[in-house]
Amino acid sequence: MSRKSKGINAEREIIHAFWKMPGWTACRVAGSGSMKYPAPDVIAGNATRKLAIECKSTKSKYQYFEKEEIKQLLDYAEMFGAEPWIAIRFNRDKIYFLKPKDLKKTEKRYTADLSLGKDKGYLFEHIT
Amino acid sequence: MSRKSKGINAEREIIHAFWKMPGWTACRVAGSGSMKYPAPDVIAGNATRKLAIECKSTKSKYQYFEKEEIKQLLDYAEMFGAEPWIAIRFNRDKIYFLKPKDLKKTEKRYTADLSLGKDKGYLFEHIT
Repeated sequence: MSRKSKGINAEREIIHAFWKMPGWTACRVAGSGSMKYPAPDVIAGNATRKLAIECKSTKSKYQYFEKEEIKQLLDYAEMFGAEPWIAIRFNRDKIYFLKPKDLKKTEKRYTADLSLGKDKGYLFEHIT
Repeated sequence: MSRKSKGINAEREIIHAFWKMPGWTACRVAGSGSMKYPAPDVIAGNATRKLAIECKSTKSKYQYFEKEEIKQLLDYAEMFGAEPWIAIRFNRDKIYFLKPKDLKKTEKRYTADLSLGKDKGYLFEHIT
């Protein structure tokens, strides 16, 4: 399965989870990355909260983020008035929701691994 | 050009227009219609306003809407806390933004035509 389709599976699972929560909506953003404007992978929200979510699914131990990717998520979220979140699934573990500020920062990129997810991340039921 | 791709062109034009307005964002929703959940074609917003927009582009004099399509737009907008809007371009005229309540209601469907757009609709610069 390609990296792209794995990401989409994580997005779909997240979207289903939000719709199961009374009052919540979620939808996948088209062409995130293909249009020149910042956009998250998923926009979720209810009457009072809005979440801009970047979704990743990886078989490796680490997930890397280019600085530009995180910057775009933060830019979009600030303009739209949404909370920025990063949702990551490592292997077949649970999906952890991380705040961008909790990613590990290296000189050129941001990284996350499963222990960071368990330490700083939130499970779906804790962010809704 | 297919109905679908014409609709996408209208969506793209609307998205570009929002991004030109300082403080506004806009993005296209993926698979509106293909997933089982209600979703608009475009979500636009700034820090204080959120707009859920259904986009149409037609060469005919009339644009029809199934009741279910409008219901889904209204349902999504209410849950997400957004204003519901319908953006229509007839032929090569301007895009008019209509409130769902201003569509003409027939027994089975809703309809709009250019004169309704000019009478009840708003131009882009008036909704932002």
